[in-house]
Amino acid sequence: MISPMHSQEELTDNAKLILSLEVSAFEKWKDGDVTRWLELSDEDVVYFDPMLEKRLDGLQQLKNYYLHSQGKFEVDKYEIINPKVQMVENMAVLTFNFKSCVGEKITFWNCTEVYRKNKNEEWKIIQTHWSITKC
Amino acid sequence: MISPMHSQEELTDNAKLILSLEVSAFEKWKDGDVTRWLELSDEDVVYFDPMLEKRLDGLQQLKNYYLHSQGKFEVDKYEIINPKVQMVENMAVLTFNFKSCVGEKITFWNCTEVYRKNKNEEWKIIQTHWSITKC
Repeated sequence: MISPMHSQEELTDNAKLILSLEVSAFEKWKDGDVTRWLELSDEDVVYFDPMLEKRLDGLQQLKNYYLHSQGKFEVDKYEIINPKVQMVENMAVLTFNFKSCVGEKITFWNCTEVYRKNKNEEWKIIQTHWSITKC
Repeated sequence: MISPMHSQEELTDNAKLILSLEVSAFEKWKDGDVTRWLELSDEDVVYFDPMLEKRLDGLQQLKNYYLHSQGKFEVDKYEIINPKVQMVENMAVLTFNFKSCVGEKITFWNCTEVYRKNKNEEWKIIQTHWSITKC
């Protein structure tokens, strides 16, 4: 699993695991496939992005929103910039800046993902927050 | 501690505690005092907002940023909209939409706060993400 990434700090094994889940979703997303995000998200996930008028609550709302765009876009390049993971035993906060390139259009983003370990020891996203970085 | 708030769900006692910390900071902030945010934030706090070109890392960076505005603004009204808390034993994710009113200017926001319980059993913010809601 290879992804363009720029990190300023050494990540622990747990942090690498969290980040590898995130990258697995980006690798599908760049080809227009959003399903990996939905697989990774838990039933009680909450979600913010700059195209929405309020927080989305729960996996069904996220599915309704994401599946509208399934297969309808492609991303030429992306970069996860300076990822950081802060964690306790069963919860991890992944933050990073992000760059997406679609044709000539380059967008810079802020992102916060919160992962929670479930009873099957699987890490699942319970909160996603995307926003536009000031340029 | 009274604050304008609109909640669609019943909060547990732990969630109420987290929310009361947040409100204690807003109550100072509306009078131009940002120091309560800094008291509540832990050493490894990370921070995003729409006026920044990248994530801030650590309490010192947040202090440098926030203290520039100390005493230089006032907020006429604010509203915490539909707060939700997702938590495990030592970490809690507080999300809400937010409305701020300064004179005629009304701004709608998305906010994610992550609190972590430290060794002294105090809840401290380790991640803040503010962004503008689509209107």
